[in-house]
Amino acid sequence: MRLNSHFLELKDSYLFKRIAQQVNEYKTENPDAEILRLGIGDVTRPLVPAVISAMEKAVLEMGGAATFRGYDDAGTGYGFLRSAVSKYYADKGVTVGEDEIIVSDGAKSDLGNILDIFADDSVALIPDPVYPAYVDTNVMNGSRIIYMNGSEVNGFLPTPDKSVTADVIYLCSPNNPTGAVYTKAQLQLWVDYANETGAVILFDAAYEAFVTDKSLPTSIFEIGGARTCAIEICSLSKLAGFTGVRCGYTIVPAELKSADGISLLALWKRRQTTKFNGVSYITQRGAEAVFSAAGLAQCRENIAYYLGNAKIIGDALSGLGIGYRGGENSPYIWFTVPGGDSWAYFGRLLRERNIVGTPGAGFGSNGEGYMRLTAFGSRENTEKAAARLKTQSG
Amino acid sequence: MRLNSHFLELKDSYLFKRIAQQVNEYKTENPDAEILRLGIGDVTRPLVPAVISAMEKAVLEMGGAATFRGYDDAGTGYGFLRSAVSKYYADKGVTVGEDEIIVSDGAKSDLGNILDIFADDSVALIPDPVYPAYVDTNVMNGSRIIYMNGSEVNGFLPTPDKSVTADVIYLCSPNNPTGAVYTKAQLQLWVDYANETGAVILFDAAYEAFVTDKSLPTSIFEIGGARTCAIEICSLSKLAGFTGVRCGYTIVPAELKSADGISLLALWKRRQTTKFNGVSYITQRGAEAVFSAAGLAQCRENIAYYLGNAKIIGDALSGLGIGYRGGENSPYIWFTVPGGDSWAYFGRLLRERNIVGTPGAGFGSNGEGYMRLTAFGSRENTEKAAARLKTQSG
Repeated sequence: MRLNSHFLELKDSYLFKRIAQQVNEYKTENPDAEILRLGIGDVTRPLVPAVISAMEKAVLEMGGAATFRGYDDAGTGYGFLRSAVSKYYADKGVTVGEDEIIVSDGAKSDLGNILDIFADDSVALIPDPVYPAYVDTNVMNGSRIIYMNGSEVNGFLPTPDKSVTADVIYLCSPNNPTGAVYTKAQLQLWVDYANETGAVILFDAAYEAFVTDKSLPTSIFEIGGARTCAIEICSLSKLAGFTGVRCGYTIVPAELKSADGISLLALWKRRQTTKFNGVSYITQRGAEAVFSAAGLAQCRENIAYYLGNAKIIGDALSGLGIGYRGGENSPYIWFTVPGGDSWAYFGRLLRERNIVGTPGAGFGSNGEGYMRLTAFGSRENTEKAAARLKTQSG
Repeated sequence: MRLNSHFLELKDSYLFKRIAQQVNEYKTENPDAEILRLGIGDVTRPLVPAVISAMEKAVLEMGGAATFRGYDDAGTGYGFLRSAVSKYYADKGVTVGEDEIIVSDGAKSDLGNILDIFADDSVALIPDPVYPAYVDTNVMNGSRIIYMNGSEVNGFLPTPDKSVTADVIYLCSPNNPTGAVYTKAQLQLWVDYANETGAVILFDAAYEAFVTDKSLPTSIFEIGGARTCAIEICSLSKLAGFTGVRCGYTIVPAELKSADGISLLALWKRRQTTKFNGVSYITQRGAEAVFSAAGLAQCRENIAYYLGNAKIIGDALSGLGIGYRGGENSPYIWFTVPGGDSWAYFGRLLRERNIVGTPGAGFGSNGEGYMRLTAFGSRENTEKAAARLKTQSG
């Protein structure tokens, strides 16, 4: 056989796997250490009651001959869930047709698999620093990657450079890892640029539920012109704590077409119905419950809880005179590390304070000198971590 | 943007979508018709009690702070499930390491996504007739496809033609759509050929649970030499009725390496941890329960029920003097259609007897002249369908 040689171009192991390895090594050597995990962006609050009761009911339905469900025939999500998502968007003033919503097992899958519908030699414009899966999936695909620089100068929110063109543009707002959020005016620059150059924006809205500032956009489709140039990829992982349940959705507007009139919605549906077979009925009923009035209210309590954690971490850093971004409208806190070497600081934080963060360098070369902490821990652990940070000597 | 032009090479729409469209059109015109669906291979028996109680428990765990689970860290399946699958294989005398089992949301996803680890210009050897997703995923990928002919002559079980070489070989046994099952001796020919030519066998074992003849192999790893040339892709859809729950697994032996020593297991794990984020914890607990003694006994009752249906359909065909294959060791019945045109017969069966079958031509040019019926219906509907078939005038 001949293998995909692009895999050999991947940088060592996936960031979070590398972190897990280092943490496991430390734990083996120091079995009694109480390690506080503020690294990987995994939630800790249990699923909300509305979701639990919907899934309990769905499990029982699957056990009865009259209510059992097999394949989700369309393969793109049950109508009840697509309708609930459409209403969620309508409530924020965005019109999205039910047929434009394709339900999946999560944003990570969709972000990787969506490359199937683009040409192999596509040029991808990717921010640096960035969620590493954008880069790894493009490397695997053999795409050419052009990085756009995030830095203190632009607040880690790069805007279009008209001297550069690309086929696909990755935007993540609220941003992982920096917590920065694009304004509507900034996103308008991207939409105009994409429409002018014929590029597609892949808008990763996984953290949209953390936006509390009403002036900030939570969907690319709040921006005029986005329906001819953007795909939005979203997840219930952060909105509803579905990291272990697995459900997301991708929105491809009907108007989004190539220069020769090919519908990207049709291509994505074809991809999904050929290489995917839908999401668990039980999961889809749980997801539907997320978007009910009770479900959203319960989920928003959890988000407020996490934003409370973010404030505790932020205040601890401020007390040390360390500036940070994020923490508001985002579960991530992004700060400059003492010493400037983010993996070295990661190691010191692990060994000296038993706190796991994520080294900024893991998100790209512009992430060097920074560290990401997440607000997804328990209140108790977050307070402990803040107390340990305050004892920081540098 | 530039799109993947290979999508334009796909034949019209995915087979089952085309069938669904025709059935829906008929239903719109004939709202009172009682349509019996023996087309798509979807199960109808509810999930077994062992699975239901395991999933109920898992749902409740997800609602408690102390028992909640987020990401499945490895992304390749919880140890409890990989251990259960490993034991399932051990019980049939096959040794598969837990680390060689990668849990997924189903065989269809894995069969499509596995192409990511092979070179884009791979040559795929695919039987005709065959499950259409093999072909469509390779077309999307731009691979070159060489068909191997299934026919009455070889019992729809092609064996290696040493004048042909390929990178990837698809085998499906028990076969979809023909119900034919390879013997150990026949699979040995394939394993030897693959080892000699450096090809990889993708062995689709989705229907293994239907094999009741103990002399027939249910895993490619029953065959000597398979660990250096084969990947097995399996699913709980047919074993345990998980079509609407979504769980499968792929086994890549540690010894399977390219000529230059690259491990396919490492590549597949890298693919999955980068473009996939694991399977629902609730689903994985349900899957674990499938492999318990009680779960397997309950699932096997359902399989016996479906095999009983197969006998009813087979007997009806025999009574009409129509020869068929499958139905034993397989949920599929594959028979020669009166008139020879399988889409025309599909239409007549739909209109005249309100039975939905799957036209053989949908599975490849060698399927023309045949029809596939499935045994996955209810006993009541199967008996009705058999009675209607017996009134067949041609």
